[in-house]
Amino acid sequence: MLDICLLGTGGMMPLPNRWLTALLVRYQGRKILIDCGEGTQITLKTLGWGFKTIDVICFTHYHGDHVTGLPGLLLTIGNAGRTEPLTLIGPPGLKKVVEGLCVITPELPFEIKLIEVNEEEAKEMRIEIDRGLFIKMLPVFHRITCFAYVLELERRPKFIPEKARTLNIPVEYWKHLQQGETVRINDKIYSPEMVSGKKRKGLKIAYCTDSRPVENLVDFIADADLFICEGMYGDDADKEQAKKKKHMVFSEAAQLARQAGVKELWLTHFSPALTEPQNFIKVATDIFPYTKVGEDRMTKNLNFLEEK
Amino acid sequence: MLDICLLGTGGMMPLPNRWLTALLVRYQGRKILIDCGEGTQITLKTLGWGFKTIDVICFTHYHGDHVTGLPGLLLTIGNAGRTEPLTLIGPPGLKKVVEGLCVITPELPFEIKLIEVNEEEAKEMRIEIDRGLFIKMLPVFHRITCFAYVLELERRPKFIPEKARTLNIPVEYWKHLQQGETVRINDKIYSPEMVSGKKRKGLKIAYCTDSRPVENLVDFIADADLFICEGMYGDDADKEQAKKKKHMVFSEAAQLARQAGVKELWLTHFSPALTEPQNFIKVATDIFPYTKVGEDRMTKNLNFLEEK
Repeated sequence: MLDICLLGTGGMMPLPNRWLTALLVRYQGRKILIDCGEGTQITLKTLGWGFKTIDVICFTHYHGDHVTGLPGLLLTIGNAGRTEPLTLIGPPGLKKVVEGLCVITPELPFEIKLIEVNEEEAKEMRIEIDRGLFIKMLPVFHRITCFAYVLELERRPKFIPEKARTLNIPVEYWKHLQQGETVRINDKIYSPEMVSGKKRKGLKIAYCTDSRPVENLVDFIADADLFICEGMYGDDADKEQAKKKKHMVFSEAAQLARQAGVKELWLTHFSPALTEPQNFIKVATDIFPYTKVGEDRMTKNLNFLEEK
Repeated sequence: MLDICLLGTGGMMPLPNRWLTALLVRYQGRKILIDCGEGTQITLKTLGWGFKTIDVICFTHYHGDHVTGLPGLLLTIGNAGRTEPLTLIGPPGLKKVVEGLCVITPELPFEIKLIEVNEEEAKEMRIEIDRGLFIKMLPVFHRITCFAYVLELERRPKFIPEKARTLNIPVEYWKHLQQGETVRINDKIYSPEMVSGKKRKGLKIAYCTDSRPVENLVDFIADADLFICEGMYGDDADKEQAKKKKHMVFSEAAQLARQAGVKELWLTHFSPALTEPQNFIKVATDIFPYTKVGEDRMTKNLNFLEEK
């Protein structure tokens, strides 16, 4: 249903054995990327999910480790044969940053659409990327304007054939109603709700880097199936440093995960000095047991819950 | 004397097992980098020669695979503690490209000096980077303006003590004369030539990518101790493709090396499709036996010739 890949786990600079933090989400063959630091295209290449169908790239903010891979990736997407428009989404400054970085890509074979979102708009915005797949954003607290992202895949309510039969809707219209379309039959209008069961839980992925833990993050990421969160430092002893640099320690990310009742937490965006993040896993699991220390190209497949 | 490292051997895009082509030259602890594609800072990190003392970065041209690593590298050089100015050298467009790419590096702790050289100036220019170490450039023939580079380390003539004694130069002045300085003693001026032997051969490194083989390259690279040259394609069957894309096949690079009488040729800038460049080495060695197929971080130390 949704395939998720944490492409890298580093922060600040790419390292020989650690790519920069970025997330790839695949839904029905189309792809959404969040962040694109130097080398993101290389870990994407190793992953092997292809370049041509990357439709959207979202940026949390414009520090180098989250954005300098953009021009190279765009060239590679072009070389892969993409001609459809590609959408870039990000906080204020998007146009300036893209125009700057793309000084060396004068001739891409596809159009770039920019959705530059200011902090006020961000709170209200819900962008439908694909049918039923939405992107939401939340301004968080870093040294510069930065967004957390949520991807939500809605699940349509179950289609109830009995209701359709009772309403005398011919079978050839059922497929449209099942797909969420409203149909008109002999001047009568039938909406999907008329033939559906109750609301069903969809899927939710949350991604937050770089930020201090802020209060409204808890609501924003609430009940996520997967929460990918920065943990620049493992040790609580580094909390002062984290406060100063506007990052988090593992325990703060775990606290957010617990408060928000997410299903699983992946830690990422490790400081280059944090060479063995796994050594600090207990700091997080003591607070939130369903924590994993991110690894480059850690992958997960999320599906709607089986119904009883 | 001169340490040379071919940081990567790829062209077009960085690959999981092949960094983009770039050259690092170290002289007395200071460093000169030629080209800086995406990921160059990572292979530099693996090499371990340090970031802080990179004084000069030269660009052959502004295709993405030669320049998109610049902003990330500048940030990393800054993080390494550099505060001295850093010089960037390249063909026309340098200012525009650097300003664009550096949109995300507003606060570097060092000054950037630009030497943007037009094609006419390039033919005459000889920039002294360090004492006796010179950079020269030559416009070559690619799809956009592109320079080949030569680094020359001059060797001072041998100091002849007998000549100094004959001229009654006190011993305390000898060191200055040996170092190439002119000294004044009791209103008499003594230049190094007055106490020196004949001219001595220095060291010369030549670097050419991306280009078709052009006639004036032969003079430019003549007698180089090491010629690093692109070979985008191994097989002569790809010569038409090479002509179209303004690149070379191995045999063309080898031909240049032979005509110019260089000591050694390293091939680099392989097409992503050329997964096993070593398979085509014979194409080159049949023409010029002292050819090596470049490998990432292939390193060589060049010293002045021993004197008999």
